[in-house]
Amino acid sequence: MTFRHKHLLGIEHLAPGDITEILDLAEQYVDLNRRPHKHSDTLAGLTQINMFFENSTRTQASFELAGKRLGADVMNMAMQASSIKKGETLIDTAMTLNAMHPDLLVVRHPHSGAVDLLAQKVNCAVLNAGDGRHEHPTQALLDALTIRRSKGRLHRLSIAICGDVAHSRVARSNLMLLGKMENRVRLIGPPTLVPAQFAEFGVEVFDDMREGLEGVDVVMMLRLQRERMDGGFIPSEREYYHRYGLDAEKLALAKPDAIVMHPGPMNRGVEIDGEIADDINRSVIQEQVEMGVAVRMAAMELLARNLRAAQPESVEV
Amino acid sequence: MTFRHKHLLGIEHLAPGDITEILDLAEQYVDLNRRPHKHSDTLAGLTQINMFFENSTRTQASFELAGKRLGADVMNMAMQASSIKKGETLIDTAMTLNAMHPDLLVVRHPHSGAVDLLAQKVNCAVLNAGDGRHEHPTQALLDALTIRRSKGRLHRLSIAICGDVAHSRVARSNLMLLGKMENRVRLIGPPTLVPAQFAEFGVEVFDDMREGLEGVDVVMMLRLQRERMDGGFIPSEREYYHRYGLDAEKLALAKPDAIVMHPGPMNRGVEIDGEIADDINRSVIQEQVEMGVAVRMAAMELLARNLRAAQPESVEV
Amino acid sequence: MTFRHKHLLGIEHLAPGDITEILDLAEQYVDLNRRPHKHSDTLAGLTQINMFFENSTRTQASFELAGKRLGADVMNMAMQASSIKKGETLIDTAMTLNAMHPDLLVVRHPHSGAVDLLAQKVNCAVLNAGDGRHEHPTQALLDALTIRRSKGRLHRLSIAICGDVAHSRVARSNLMLLGKMENRVRLIGPPTLVPAQFAEFGVEVFDDMREGLEGVDVVMMLRLQRERMDGGFIPSEREYYHRYGLDAEKLALAKPDAIVMHPGPMNRGVEIDGEIADDINRSVIQEQVEMGVAVRMAAMELLARNLRAAQPESVEV
Repeated sequence: MTFRHKHLLGIEHLAPGDITEILDLAEQYVDLNRRPHKHSDTLAGLTQINMFFENSTRTQASFELAGKRLGADVMNMAMQASSIKKGETLIDTAMTLNAMHPDLLVVRHPHSGAVDLLAQKVNCAVLNAGDGRHEHPTQALLDALTIRRSKGRLHRLSIAICGDVAHSRVARSNLMLLGKMENRVRLIGPPTLVPAQFAEFGVEVFDDMREGLEGVDVVMMLRLQRERMDGGFIPSEREYYHRYGLDAEKLALAKPDAIVMHPGPMNRGVEIDGEIADDINRSVIQEQVEMGVAVRMAAMELLARNLRAAQPESVEV
Repeated sequence: MTFRHKHLLGIEHLAPGDITEILDLAEQYVDLNRRPHKHSDTLAGLTQINMFFENSTRTQASFELAGKRLGADVMNMAMQASSIKKGETLIDTAMTLNAMHPDLLVVRHPHSGAVDLLAQKVNCAVLNAGDGRHEHPTQALLDALTIRRSKGRLHRLSIAICGDVAHSRVARSNLMLLGKMENRVRLIGPPTLVPAQFAEFGVEVFDDMREGLEGVDVVMMLRLQRERMDGGFIPSEREYYHRYGLDAEKLALAKPDAIVMHPGPMNRGVEIDGEIADDINRSVIQEQVEMGVAVRMAAMELLARNLRAAQPESVEV
Repeated sequence: MTFRHKHLLGIEHLAPGDITEILDLAEQYVDLNRRPHKHSDTLAGLTQINMFFENSTRTQASFELAGKRLGADVMNMAMQASSIKKGETLIDTAMTLNAMHPDLLVVRHPHSGAVDLLAQKVNCAVLNAGDGRHEHPTQALLDALTIRRSKGRLHRLSIAICGDVAHSRVARSNLMLLGKMENRVRLIGPPTLVPAQFAEFGVEVFDDMREGLEGVDVVMMLRLQRERMDGGFIPSEREYYHRYGLDAEKLALAKPDAIVMHPGPMNRGVEIDGEIADDINRSVIQEQVEMGVAVRMAAMELLARNLRAAQPESVEV
């Protein structure tokens, strides 16, 4: 066992061995979740709190199910409703929850870095469920598991990440994970949505989707995040689909067995053609969701193990 | 055991034997729920997801309690908050949840037929918790259990369903259930709220409440659903109460031991007099709520049994 | 064992022995909550429903965690969303929930007395989680436990309650509890926020904060509740902080080992200086939150014991 982290804040902090350990354990939970009786006592007696400062039906549901199936006491906090606006009070909120002795705190926040800040203030394990444009580590891990199961390996693959890279924490976390595992990553999109500084990650950048998709093993589409675009060029949906939407003609340029991924929720007809999304021979979009629950169960189990190892039976606050 | 259905989508699909089986099992849960220790492991290891696309505090609470008392891992999805507007994305949402491997999916949706559509797309058992003006099967089942316990039988009774029949899935499901069990059903209300096509169900239709209530065993009042009336004649509350509100004088025309029912929440002074609603000798409105939890426990147990029978220990998605 | 109450509606109804019994039992839960495995089966098989007619992220979270850690089936009802406006329908809602056989009903309501009214209508144990300006008994109990642990005793202490006393159920419940345990309580604040009638509780009232704080063992700050002030004099925040905000200079007048309390959430720089709030040598604000979960676990356990003692194994509704 190599995974020795206290928190899961980003892919940035993980070694390749950490990633492999999470994915290997997640495979066991894929099996468990397919059984009629899908419940274990791995996290029994532990308290998991989900603090979502941004709405996310699917990610919150995935973490909630993961914790409940592992036997944790799970509580959702509706943080949008409460009056939290300043970094200062974010800390007060975190300290308040910390005093209730959670073991696992799952946090989504609109500001990059907010989850790291919060992790410094609390005693429990913190899982980043997405912070601003920074990281979304469990999404990258579930994507990695999906790729590994489809392709039989997670290295020396050619992977295209397409679309609104600039606003995407999903892209950032995937970029890092896929690089650490020694894959060749290409970013495809209009220059306004794929900033030049991403070249530092050692990736190839393409403006033309046909060029970028040529010969890739994996086509990873991103959601067009209009809500994150402040000012700047916003293409029309029609124009965007024409140039960067994944359709059969563009997909034909990838390898014949290339898989198609999307983190969801999809804008059908904007970044992806509906028929391709539904094509069970190419699309692994539903499997990504399935892997999401398994990967989160694995990550929480590993963090809980480290938490228990660090804790005597009774501790002072 | 005769109940062999995969889903509970509507009373339409149930045979009289199915109905009796659900009610008989529900009787056991009435007993369990009255005990101090009201928890069993019948659904332990199973995942129940409540997807309510329409607000319904009481129905959602009833399903949630039913699942928790049976030991399921229960998750509520706040679907109003999420951005679901088109049938297309309803399916995407359903497929996403399906990939998380729920066993029981409880769905309420404002559009008639939406729950049936969704059931075709998923692997789990689906329970219709109300879809548009179509069906609300667990409401009809809880009403049936309430009647059977009060009257000692569920056949050859004379039952009046009064008020806003046109907009009521409660009325439709009850109409079918009571007909299948060989009761005589009367519909009472203004012609605008009791469309002529209901005659096809073999019921008698009355415009005059006094005539309609004469000699009935059961008086089932409906909620005036102003929110569902688009255009058309809307009576004033005062006028409506005068003609169709249940008061002591009108109730006197029913049998002396006739019971009074209402699916709740009540508009006191609009469709029913508050004193009658609270009269424990006539009103069984609280008992209806109690039966609701028991009937839902029974329905979920039967569906889970069929699900397990159909599933090998480990299945591929 | 002396605690014989069916409900926990207010400190008003508790004898000193009741208070001591709750606090003694809560000490055990403080220990449990600090362990890695923080779950017991004390309330297994029981149903707890949280009905919050007013938003309160922290109090609801505290009760929810308390119930889940004790093994109850816990359900939150989003009562703001549902259409409850009149006392009449409050009762209908209560009767509906009662018919679902909860064992513990935790209620917060904006109107003073609403929780008492509701308790008269239901069969289960009711816990008041705050009603209007009336009572907030679990807050007073958690404050008492915090004081007892810090000071080694809960009697013959000199305690200042400072600020917006007029709008505060926290102040009212604390006033009664601290009085019953034979402490000397001082109220400090502008005359508009500390009405003269509070003198009847046998307290000293101070307009000048420096005078009031002199030699006290405990400084209990209150949140400035602008949302509850209708008309009347509202001081500017700056003016208020100058005269009644707790800063180092004013705190220097209290005993050297005086502790600082606040029920949260804090308005930093309005009623309290941020540095004092964070000073772990003086502030016990985080410990108050921790004690909150423990005190609620203890209160629910005692009420559940009395409920079981009163109930035969199977009861009629």
